[in-house]
Amino acid sequence: MRELRIALLGAGTVGGGLIELIQNRAQALQARTGTEIKITAVADRSHRKKAFLQNQSFDVSDDAISVIERDDVDVVVELIGGLEPAREWVLHALKKGKHVVTANKALLANHGKEIFAQAAEVGREIGFEAAVAGALPVVRNLRRVWVGSDMHEMFGILNGTCNFIITRMQKEDMAYEDALKIAQEKGFAEADPAFDVSGRDAAQKLAILSTLAFDHLVQESDIRVEGITELSPLDHAMAMRMGKVIRLLAVAKKKSDGYHLRVHPALISSKHLLASVEEENNALFTDDPYSGPTMIVGRGAGAFPTASAVLSDIAAIARNPEGQPEIWVSGSQSMQCASDASYRFYLRFRTLDRAGVLAAISKVLADHEISIATMHQEEGPEPVDVVIVTHGARESKLASALDIINAMEIIRAPTVALRLEEPGQG
Amino acid sequence: MRELRIALLGAGTVGGGLIELIQNRAQALQARTGTEIKITAVADRSHRKKAFLQNQSFDVSDDAISVIERDDVDVVVELIGGLEPAREWVLHALKKGKHVVTANKALLANHGKEIFAQAAEVGREIGFEAAVAGALPVVRNLRRVWVGSDMHEMFGILNGTCNFIITRMQKEDMAYEDALKIAQEKGFAEADPAFDVSGRDAAQKLAILSTLAFDHLVQESDIRVEGITELSPLDHAMAMRMGKVIRLLAVAKKKSDGYHLRVHPALISSKHLLASVEEENNALFTDDPYSGPTMIVGRGAGAFPTASAVLSDIAAIARNPEGQPEIWVSGSQSMQCASDASYRFYLRFRTLDRAGVLAAISKVLADHEISIATMHQEEGPEPVDVVIVTHGARESKLASALDIINAMEIIRAPTVALRLEEPGQG
Repeated sequence: MRELRIALLGAGTVGGGLIELIQNRAQALQARTGTEIKITAVADRSHRKKAFLQNQSFDVSDDAISVIERDDVDVVVELIGGLEPAREWVLHALKKGKHVVTANKALLANHGKEIFAQAAEVGREIGFEAAVAGALPVVRNLRRVWVGSDMHEMFGILNGTCNFIITRMQKEDMAYEDALKIAQEKGFAEADPAFDVSGRDAAQKLAILSTLAFDHLVQESDIRVEGITELSPLDHAMAMRMGKVIRLLAVAKKKSDGYHLRVHPALISSKHLLASVEEENNALFTDDPYSGPTMIVGRGAGAFPTASAVLSDIAAIARNPEGQPEIWVSGSQSMQCASDASYRFYLRFRTLDRAGVLAAISKVLADHEISIATMHQEEGPEPVDVVIVTHGARESKLASALDIINAMEIIRAPTVALRLEEPGQG
Repeated sequence: MRELRIALLGAGTVGGGLIELIQNRAQALQARTGTEIKITAVADRSHRKKAFLQNQSFDVSDDAISVIERDDVDVVVELIGGLEPAREWVLHALKKGKHVVTANKALLANHGKEIFAQAAEVGREIGFEAAVAGALPVVRNLRRVWVGSDMHEMFGILNGTCNFIITRMQKEDMAYEDALKIAQEKGFAEADPAFDVSGRDAAQKLAILSTLAFDHLVQESDIRVEGITELSPLDHAMAMRMGKVIRLLAVAKKKSDGYHLRVHPALISSKHLLASVEEENNALFTDDPYSGPTMIVGRGAGAFPTASAVLSDIAAIARNPEGQPEIWVSGSQSMQCASDASYRFYLRFRTLDRAGVLAAISKVLADHEISIATMHQEEGPEPVDVVIVTHGARESKLASALDIINAMEIIRAPTVALRLEEPGQG
């Protein structure tokens, strides 16, 4: 029996899940891969406090560098997260001729260029299925299954925290803060949820998927990000009245004027497949002229789902340890990001209920070539909500118009602007 | 640049799509795989009548055997379908040391043992992503992404014709015959739809997926099959009233008493992800303790979707032409198929509207230990429909009960019995 020897850097939730998964499924893994997948060494700074690391067949150490450099290690699995020392360790492992598997989305979305180049130089595999959407097979599928694809648009629901909050708000007519609290109680949101609810987590994942789909290195800084913190129950109710639902979408489009890469809450048809993605689930919807519209949906986080994805990368190396590594960035495209885009917008203005308010708002919109499709005002105590849905409008024009409108004395809160997306209709 | 040389047996719809896809995406394929994927020869009996085969860079011939045996062929792609001569040609290609890619579900579901054994013996790859669910990456995912899985149940919507008919009936309150006619007009159903609507097509695909999920060779004959031809608009209306929808499900479960392998129309919750699979789409829902509930949905047929799947197998070989081929049947399990199962059933009796009918039916059910949960009778001209939903009942007991009931003079048509399935709750 061939063997593949693993060093694990970081034995937290996912690392612990991986150890358990490899041990529980040892027999099936041997039968399915023809290889014994064997953990040789684990580096974890607090290993003395972790009962599951005691009395194991592998060595345990504080010292990541010496673990990386061991001769009896073929693959280094980096599960410590963050930028440093993860970057240093991953590069060091590649330089020492080890394959690397990582679940670190921040690392690849910010230092992808350096890491992919190093892997290519040494001819070693860098696997990162677990960096995007946990157990969902989206990373390899983009390069392997849809290998001939000519992807023009992708829509992801890539952050389970946001999707949980949004669908709870939608289904239970709940305020953002209340839904966030439930998410925190259930362990779907951190005590400080900013990284998730701001859309940044989804943006790092979108950078990775766009890199694969478009054959061109995309980094986190290329992506425009808007979060979900300003959503209100009224937005969900209005969306429903329009036959739509709100989701935090990670959107990547290739158009004649460049890439359009955005993370933002958007209204989509309630009949679209993406509308069926609820609670903490993740999903990726792709529409390629060859494969057609396709969606993958499931668990985007958690110890075992993420460990499963890590294991799939390890198994891919097990089958072909000395073969040609995956070409992740083929670089045949060289488009830039588009600076502007046209969308239909849902706008919610929070205003005093005075004569002339609608006239004032409408005039500013008209001055910026933004045409109103529908308008709705709720009755109630001041300030009131006025909802306008526009025809197609430039983002840049809308931004200018909202600068003026938000400065008006009658406007009592920053205007909420949500895009209408039509996945698969582009 | 390395090259991988392809021989294509059969240039029909999918073969034509494959030629076009490889030619259109030649540059991307080179960049993504590091290999030039090149069609060397095509064998097709009616090649003289096909304009797209003229003036190409590849050779065209009537003679499949000589094409298979060419020295400048690394991979033989079998797209002729059917059992013979496909079986003979695939085995011959393997014996000649060629890798094989096939879209032929019937072949693998009936001669899988011989073909997998031959591929293993010669150390060549047999790829068949396209045999199940077209562009949906379900075949390789079962072995590669969910490589450590301990799958206990899978639910597939594996026949687009049936799903189209069923969802049209459901949404437009349409009779089976009318929905079938639309499917035929749209090209989603054959003039003779028997192979699809009987459930056999789905059964062949389920045999392949079960083989991969359970590490044990499953053949078409292992699967119990019921089709969709007896469904009526009332069944859909009653399902909706119960908060459910009907789908033709391909179900594979591993339980303590053996495999449960079935294709049958079933009622599932309208809130389940599988209920969102409409029209001609295919889907596979899996629930494994490690990866969690996951669904892949998209186009299960068509020239380009199927060609995309074929190409994904070709690209997998391109990356690793001399490496260890995939181990498709690892054979660590040796369970038998279970002969009976317990289900809740939806039963529709077509009866004369006479006093004592319900008593007579109820008595037979009670005699077979089948307990009634709900009963509903529609008013209308004779014969009338009586719908009963049972508590959990053995299939064998129900079959005996229905033998007696269907023989009663008051019963005017064979009773329709649909299972209630709860995917992901098992």
